[in-house]
Amino acid sequence: MDYQEKALKKHKELRGKIEVTLKDTLDTQEKLSTYYTPGVAAVSSYVAAHPEEARDYTWLNNSVAIVSDGSAVLGLGNIGPYGALPVMEGKAMLFKHFAGIDAVPIVLNVHTADEIVAAVTAIAPSFGGINLEDIAAPICFEVEDRIKAELNIPVMHDDQHGTAIVVLAGLINAMKVTGKDLHSCRVVCVGAGAAGTAIMKLLYRYARPVILAVDSQGIISKNRPGLTFEKRKLLEFTNSNAVEGTLEDAMENADIFIGVSQAGLVTTKMIQSMAKGAIIFAMANPTPEIMPADARLAGAAIVATGRSDFPNQVNNALAFPGIFRGALDNRVNKITDQHKINAAEVIASLVQEPSANMIVPSVLDERLVPAIAAIIR
Amino acid sequence: MDYQEKALKKHKELRGKIEVTLKDTLDTQEKLSTYYTPGVAAVSSYVAAHPEEARDYTWLNNSVAIVSDGSAVLGLGNIGPYGALPVMEGKAMLFKHFAGIDAVPIVLNVHTADEIVAAVTAIAPSFGGINLEDIAAPICFEVEDRIKAELNIPVMHDDQHGTAIVVLAGLINAMKVTGKDLHSCRVVCVGAGAAGTAIMKLLYRYARPVILAVDSQGIISKNRPGLTFEKRKLLEFTNSNAVEGTLEDAMENADIFIGVSQAGLVTTKMIQSMAKGAIIFAMANPTPEIMPADARLAGAAIVATGRSDFPNQVNNALAFPGIFRGALDNRVNKITDQHKINAAEVIASLVQEPSANMIVPSVLDERLVPAIAAIIR
Repeated sequence: MDYQEKALKKHKELRGKIEVTLKDTLDTQEKLSTYYTPGVAAVSSYVAAHPEEARDYTWLNNSVAIVSDGSAVLGLGNIGPYGALPVMEGKAMLFKHFAGIDAVPIVLNVHTADEIVAAVTAIAPSFGGINLEDIAAPICFEVEDRIKAELNIPVMHDDQHGTAIVVLAGLINAMKVTGKDLHSCRVVCVGAGAAGTAIMKLLYRYARPVILAVDSQGIISKNRPGLTFEKRKLLEFTNSNAVEGTLEDAMENADIFIGVSQAGLVTTKMIQSMAKGAIIFAMANPTPEIMPADARLAGAAIVATGRSDFPNQVNNALAFPGIFRGALDNRVNKITDQHKINAAEVIASLVQEPSANMIVPSVLDERLVPAIAAIIR
Repeated sequence: MDYQEKALKKHKELRGKIEVTLKDTLDTQEKLSTYYTPGVAAVSSYVAAHPEEARDYTWLNNSVAIVSDGSAVLGLGNIGPYGALPVMEGKAMLFKHFAGIDAVPIVLNVHTADEIVAAVTAIAPSFGGINLEDIAAPICFEVEDRIKAELNIPVMHDDQHGTAIVVLAGLINAMKVTGKDLHSCRVVCVGAGAAGTAIMKLLYRYARPVILAVDSQGIISKNRPGLTFEKRKLLEFTNSNAVEGTLEDAMENADIFIGVSQAGLVTTKMIQSMAKGAIIFAMANPTPEIMPADARLAGAAIVATGRSDFPNQVNNALAFPGIFRGALDNRVNKITDQHKINAAEVIASLVQEPSANMIVPSVLDERLVPAIAAIIR
């Protein structure tokens, strides 16, 4: 039985991977009267009068909504809310398993920025934090910005920032392995959607390397007609020399390739044209832009992918559990760029001796969540 | 320590009464790959292609959202979403304890019918059913009607219909005890909000008794100026003789008093003016319209209240767990009046020998949920 068949079988067996359970039994009239009426009325009155203490009397101190409209699910694209639900339930499992957080999948039947913002801000008092997930670019940018501005609880679009944090962590260790300096690196990022945009922003914020953004039309340059608002914004910190050309052109002499695009886009010839000690993050899912063995054969010093069956798995699960654990515990209501950079440094620091095949820790490393949570302050 | 102090203490100790837990462990790479990426992609693709099977692969077959805007919480009134949250968490405990249902509290920051409908329909793909709760009249009527019309999952405003079902169940047995016939009874209902309106509608649908609705201004009559739309609709099946007057006037010769109003509204003199074998449902919370001992002394044959410390507790928890259990298991997407009447009859039938102090079963009666669930088809 292959893994897809097995996943279908197990999901049908379980009929849902998460459940709601009680923190105390309800087996006496006294408990009914304490947790429900009439006792709960005293709690409700108190909380209504002191809303800032709601988290001390309810699950707000430990609950997160995982919100998706199903418009960009894994590599599957716009498959809608029902298709998204198994992924969000799976993510709720990760939240609980890795960080002890009670996460609830909220999949949405609406897809415009206005509608998503309205729905999320309407239900926000139910949760201690909001993890936006698998919402397509460019709507995801506006949605996150507006929800963050409106709410006073931690909000993070994980496809953007979780990925960016882990890529930065991996690059910090890749610098140690290759002896390169990120400040003077030439970076090519293919894919200018949610993840690519956030990765480039965070890299620039961290070390101001030279960055070329590439999309399906080639290098994003100010001379290219018809750029979207979001792509024009990328030009504020990428491609200051207005280089034009293809992915192939961009790759020449680059130190770092970051792919959040499509299977097989990168050829061995492109890798050969890169600077010595090239670093390849080929994160297209499930099939990378170039297979690790091919990239290494063509001269790449380090190859990372999104997959667990190759070394150097760039996995959001390295970051988001600790980020939300820290935000909830330390009452941090805005996740800032500085938080993300600090988290990347902490993740990188957990690899004692970085090597070509070990630039990020294992997602199962139990030091991760407490170490990251401690710096979200 | 009184019960209010105890409730505050226990809630602060627990910091949330419910949690999200996993149906399987996540301790191996294989399980991570089955429940999350890459395995879950096969499930998501399948569900996206067969949305009608989503419930077989996710928790949709067993999950309910408990939605409130906090505008009419218990007897506390409009205390907002944070004040409502402890009640909704408590209700989630009841859902799980009595019916094994995974219920998630969703408290809303919005209060117009349009906004509530938009928020609930937006998040609806996340849940197998919607329990509306503690939403003030008259908005609750429009909200429920519109959400029911838009969604293809069971939706029920429990303050209306849960209460109506249990009142009807109690009256069915009260008829057996007093020898009265509901068809020829004169009913006075004080309080024309969510519960009162639903009770009167269901009673009329069941037995067409003579009903007078009374609000804070007195008997609702077509001659009274300034009636709201909802109260004018009540006149379609109440007060066909256009009787005018006070509560005191209404009570004269009435067989049944139903109170969903305020503490102490009913005097012993009013009870004395009722027909022989009077039936009193004094359900104001936490203090009834008249205390049971006073009503009995004044000649009432049967007294019910909303409280657990008196006989005949009219408690929604007798109805909603079985209603939703049945709707989820039997894929019933609309709860109809006939379902409600059948549920009331089932609840009544579980009392083998009804007596003045035992017209409804105990909420702890384990026969309730399976018996009700079986008739929601």
